[in-house]
Amino acid sequence: MEIGLNKVNRISHPINSIINVGRNTIGGKEIAIMAGPCSVESEEQIVNIAEKLKTSGAGFLRGGIFKPRTSPYSFQGLGETGLEMLKIAREKTGLPIVTELMSLDYLDKFIENVDVIQIGARNMQNYPLLKELGKIKKPVLLKRGMSATIEEFLMAAEYIMLEGNENVVLCERGIRTFERYTRNTLDLSAVPIIKKLSHLPVIVDPSHASGLWWLVEPLSKAAIAAGADGLIIEVHNDPINAKCDGEQSITPDRFQKLMKDLKAIAKLENKLL
Amino acid sequence: MEIGLNKVNRISHPINSIINVGRNTIGGKEIAIMAGPCSVESEEQIVNIAEKLKTSGAGFLRGGIFKPRTSPYSFQGLGETGLEMLKIAREKTGLPIVTELMSLDYLDKFIENVDVIQIGARNMQNYPLLKELGKIKKPVLLKRGMSATIEEFLMAAEYIMLEGNENVVLCERGIRTFERYTRNTLDLSAVPIIKKLSHLPVIVDPSHASGLWWLVEPLSKAAIAAGADGLIIEVHNDPINAKCDGEQSITPDRFQKLMKDLKAIAKLENKLL
Amino acid sequence: MEIGLNKVNRISHPINSIINVGRNTIGGKEIAIMAGPCSVESEEQIVNIAEKLKTSGAGFLRGGIFKPRTSPYSFQGLGETGLEMLKIAREKTGLPIVTELMSLDYLDKFIENVDVIQIGARNMQNYPLLKELGKIKKPVLLKRGMSATIEEFLMAAEYIMLEGNENVVLCERGIRTFERYTRNTLDLSAVPIIKKLSHLPVIVDPSHASGLWWLVEPLSKAAIAAGADGLIIEVHNDPINAKCDGEQSITPDRFQKLMKDLKAIAKLENKLL
Amino acid sequence: MEIGLNKVNRISHPINSIINVGRNTIGGKEIAIMAGPCSVESEEQIVNIAEKLKTSGAGFLRGGIFKPRTSPYSFQGLGETGLEMLKIAREKTGLPIVTELMSLDYLDKFIENVDVIQIGARNMQNYPLLKELGKIKKPVLLKRGMSATIEEFLMAAEYIMLEGNENVVLCERGIRTFERYTRNTLDLSAVPIIKKLSHLPVIVDPSHASGLWWLVEPLSKAAIAAGADGLIIEVHNDPINAKCDGEQSITPDRFQKLMKDLKAIAKLENKLL
Repeated sequence: MEIGLNKVNRISHPINSIINVGRNTIGGKEIAIMAGPCSVESEEQIVNIAEKLKTSGAGFLRGGIFKPRTSPYSFQGLGETGLEMLKIAREKTGLPIVTELMSLDYLDKFIENVDVIQIGARNMQNYPLLKELGKIKKPVLLKRGMSATIEEFLMAAEYIMLEGNENVVLCERGIRTFERYTRNTLDLSAVPIIKKLSHLPVIVDPSHASGLWWLVEPLSKAAIAAGADGLIIEVHNDPINAKCDGEQSITPDRFQKLMKDLKAIAKLENKLL
Repeated sequence: MEIGLNKVNRISHPINSIINVGRNTIGGKEIAIMAGPCSVESEEQIVNIAEKLKTSGAGFLRGGIFKPRTSPYSFQGLGETGLEMLKIAREKTGLPIVTELMSLDYLDKFIENVDVIQIGARNMQNYPLLKELGKIKKPVLLKRGMSATIEEFLMAAEYIMLEGNENVVLCERGIRTFERYTRNTLDLSAVPIIKKLSHLPVIVDPSHASGLWWLVEPLSKAAIAAGADGLIIEVHNDPINAKCDGEQSITPDRFQKLMKDLKAIAKLENKLL
Repeated sequence: MEIGLNKVNRISHPINSIINVGRNTIGGKEIAIMAGPCSVESEEQIVNIAEKLKTSGAGFLRGGIFKPRTSPYSFQGLGETGLEMLKIAREKTGLPIVTELMSLDYLDKFIENVDVIQIGARNMQNYPLLKELGKIKKPVLLKRGMSATIEEFLMAAEYIMLEGNENVVLCERGIRTFERYTRNTLDLSAVPIIKKLSHLPVIVDPSHASGLWWLVEPLSKAAIAAGADGLIIEVHNDPINAKCDGEQSITPDRFQKLMKDLKAIAKLENKLL
Repeated sequence: MEIGLNKVNRISHPINSIINVGRNTIGGKEIAIMAGPCSVESEEQIVNIAEKLKTSGAGFLRGGIFKPRTSPYSFQGLGETGLEMLKIAREKTGLPIVTELMSLDYLDKFIENVDVIQIGARNMQNYPLLKELGKIKKPVLLKRGMSATIEEFLMAAEYIMLEGNENVVLCERGIRTFERYTRNTLDLSAVPIIKKLSHLPVIVDPSHASGLWWLVEPLSKAAIAAGADGLIIEVHNDPINAKCDGEQSITPDRFQKLMKDLKAIAKLENKLL
């Protein structure tokens, strides 16, 4: 497994990497909570959600503007307009923004305006994209591919780091299995395994892993208990009418309650939240 | 999903089932911890381990005497001799015993001598066996098949309950996926899903799920945080020389430390340990 | 892989094993075609189908009498009554009968009355059952478990052979994957792999593999082209009203047409049909 | 399944699509055989292989110049230099060239110089790439993603067709499952399923599916018997010293023998080769 993992592995870098994003950190004492809607839908929506998340103690605002949808007929995101809305929400709340980059065409815009660049599961092995992200300094949130082994996941991070960018955060988001009740199968074993093999921070996405809002709470708690450095959670003010992923989004009220539960577990793990 | 789940589903039985085993319960306030070696190897071994488990607060002693091994050339267990050793360990510690039944030939002996009859993953759909277990009152610990969906798992429990035995405990033990780092992929989502669909207790086997002793601790904590009613953990006094599954067994010392961590999480979940 | 495969592997037995069943053979020059309904439903049904199969050139009559159904509420087969009907069909057509054994309770009856004893996917690792089958001489048709690796499949055959029964036929019947369009994913690579590793005959079940009648024809042809020694195919006179698996059953007319196509491919493979 | 498949489905286009590439066709009477090394390594190598393939009757020359390797330390292909070598081989043999595009940076060069643009499994859901390929007329060979369902695979083709490019060829190349003996599990059921749902041609890649050269022959034959419109096969003059995928490459001599076998099966299927 360690072959070829010169940058990612813990042997060459025994201490946990801590990624700085404004005044927040990922990978240190602090649990990083990224929350927000699947898609930015309007200025009002994203500002409203961001303010509630801020009040509940979230550290980052997530919101999709370029959406990799299985069908070309599904909502593809607001694009650059959505980015402006995210920036307004950031300005009003101070929350750094996390959003997915799908094409190098927007890289410069993302470097300038986004705080953490997310690379989705479908692009985990889009090597030309990874290589370009390696040449910048902006933190990259790399999601595990739907059928990527842990070894392949770490190799994808190596592609980024080898080019010089050491600010990589890994995200377990469920793998594809035969089980049909959930959208994917959350592989929580990946958390302690990656922590053992690598110095990079690992967060968990219980929303995409399960596809069901009522699983977000128990899986979030389990993820922190298993040693995750953070979570990325879909929160929507009106899940039933969400333009995408409404079934897996929790409301701001449920998020607030969840944050209390997570604080207690974080404390047991000697982490801050 | 609910079609045909007349006995197992929560609609017909909204309150959690609580299974009584001597003075212990499974499925109630109390977290059920079953621990012990993969195989009973000698009287000295099983008594020694049982005493340490008792001291650390385990509620049940597990130990295999009939082992379903992939190869016919692997150690197949001590059989009835092993059962006598388990009984001695129970007598010395008071811990009820949990052990796997593979064949109806031994059913009477198990009814008489064993406290919880375990049905392994390979026999989850051995329907003649399930039907016979349905005719007794002894608690049955039913493990999820390696590639069973949650629906099929509940259907297997329905086979038992339909015959009249309501004392069924379900056990998530990892499913088979493409990931090779772990022996199986622990599907913790199954815990809250089963709790939602069914009134039956659900426990988790982090040892078989991962196949790696150092994953037992984080996965055990995650399981309790996700709402599991208990755990079944492989503990061996000398893992390196264990006759089977040494790689996934923790020592009694590590078990003792783990129990402390689990107590803290159980408390957050309003459970007792 | 070869570790522990003393009986099954080709190293110890370089020549293909040929299993004799009456005047038919499995594993030699002749392609073995087993066909018939999922379940025996009535004397009229099974005799009617058997006669048509005979005319089309099938070598064996298959028909379930004990059915391992996921739900206890599904039709479980006619049991011993069904066996009598199978015997009548055999008497009228001369076709040897293949049917599944689920429990040792019926072993003697099967030894006396059945020509090939089928062990289903769910019982591939039911070791007490395999060991008993090892003590007889009757041919055993062992189906691959839903999530069994090829290595585990061969190990299961080793359990039978180690006890002395060398008349084992292996059956690839699809494995469980994430793909949902088909019931299982037919793993045709398993055919040449098993032929390389072992001397045992390998047949293919395109009906259970796909779950869709219109896939039976192309998959049957592919299986013979890949080197399979035979096929086991579900044929029903009235698929829409079949008591089980109607969706994956072909009619006797389609079977007749398929046999013609198979003959041509068999010829290319230097096989007889 | 049909929802959103306006362009790809057979309902809107009942007749098989035939893609023209020079004097060759894909999807018609003719079986399309694409063959060549995993990577172009030198002018001598590629010309030498191409000449042998031509003699044996191959219709297309495949050869990687941009290689999506799991590790950044593996050979990444010769890039544009390799393209010049491919062009020389085409000039000398007349075989049209098929090679993988990973980045839009090279799209213009590929439009000008390549005959069929291959999109690899890792980029099956790289939607910005697919959309750009939809705006050209050049044939696109789209490989199925490692864990893509058939529905998702067809949706990816829809992304291309929706933009206007109707010259899409689909390629089944194995899916990721638990089985470890092969690199992937070839899903031959996908061939008749796609032929039923869509009018697009479907070819099969037995080399990547299996990862083992000795499986290429039986799987190629099975693919044609299952109704595939063609094959893409790795052929290398010196597999042991190949810069990549040597284990799954056959020699030109074996390829020649395979072509003879395939011709016989093609004839049974009323196809030309």
